[in-house]
Amino acid sequence: MPRVVVDVMLKPEILDPQGQAVANALPRLGVSDVASVRIGRRIEIEFTGEPDLDRAREIADKLLANPVIEDFTVRMVTADETAGAQS
Amino acid sequence: MPRVVVDVMLKPEILDPQGQAVANALPRLGVSDVASVRIGRRIEIEFTGEPDLDRAREIADKLLANPVIEDFTVRMVTADETAGAQS
Amino acid sequence: MPRVVVDVMLKPEILDPQGQAVANALPRLGVSDVASVRIGRRIEIEFTGEPDLDRAREIADKLLANPVIEDFTVRMVTADETAGAQS
Amino acid sequence: MPRVVVDVMLKPEILDPQGQAVANALPRLGVSDVASVRIGRRIEIEFTGEPDLDRAREIADKLLANPVIEDFTVRMVTADETAGAQS
Repeated sequence: MPRVVVDVMLKPEILDPQGQAVANALPRLGVSDVASVRIGRRIEIEFTGEPDLDRAREIADKLLANPVIEDFTVRMVTADETAGAQS
Repeated sequence: MPRVVVDVMLKPEILDPQGQAVANALPRLGVSDVASVRIGRRIEIEFTGEPDLDRAREIADKLLANPVIEDFTVRMVTADETAGAQS
Repeated sequence: MPRVVVDVMLKPEILDPQGQAVANALPRLGVSDVASVRIGRRIEIEFTGEPDLDRAREIADKLLANPVIEDFTVRMVTADETAGAQS
Repeated sequence: MPRVVVDVMLKPEILDPQGQAVANALPRLGVSDVASVRIGRRIEIEFTGEPDLDRAREIADKLLANPVIEDFTVRMVTADETAGAQS
């Protein structure tokens, strides 16, 4: 079943200390070619009927993202992009 | 610049109370056609050189996801899928 | 105004990769005496009337924590323990 | 073992949509006396030796909180306040 995905990320000008922590931990894994890590949220919304992008956008705007500090995008995804399908 | 995105979601059999809270709040917005909401994490990793999927997978496995309760996928994204590009 | 605080932490036996990332990043800050870092959630609930611990516990159980992987505690706090009061 | 707890909350003037979602979901549980719900992070830091509040504050400032949008407090806790001790 296709679903709507809302990706929420801190605005680029807002510092992300948790992403920074991951980036700072990488040298201990032997990784030295990462410029930045940013951690946001991914929300998967399943509709009972036809997925509705406008509706999802309204939900994101009211309940999922804080427009002052975060940006979000809304898009339809097919089953095989779904997280967990394979890693 | 292309980047690698890691999507981390709770395994399907693990309850997601925060997603449940959003789903339960929807009727008050007049939304009644949502079957489920699941909240995960989206991590954007920017490499200084060529994006490296295998490396990203290793980072995810060690520092981003808990394999006991979460699934993750790793993929390359182009600039226009990037969250914040447009909403 | 006193409020109820719900602290939600992953159960001790569940790995916390985000806390691990912070712990792994510490040597770069010159910190070498930290044994572990665990990242959970803190939820502050303000009641319109008398704070109600039983109610808060029910909310936590249904909408804030996942009992399979997380433990939570519920307690009343006075204003001066409130995060943000001073750091 | 006593540990240091860092509580990180969005500044009061910053909207918290996830807390809002929980608040909006409460009437469906029959709860109508909650004025607000705010969701933050609780970080437990265990030191190998003597817990060090100044050190914890520095860690919080660099890797746990974003001072532009979040406030944090740092404090020592005794075992019985620890989340998970009892719920």
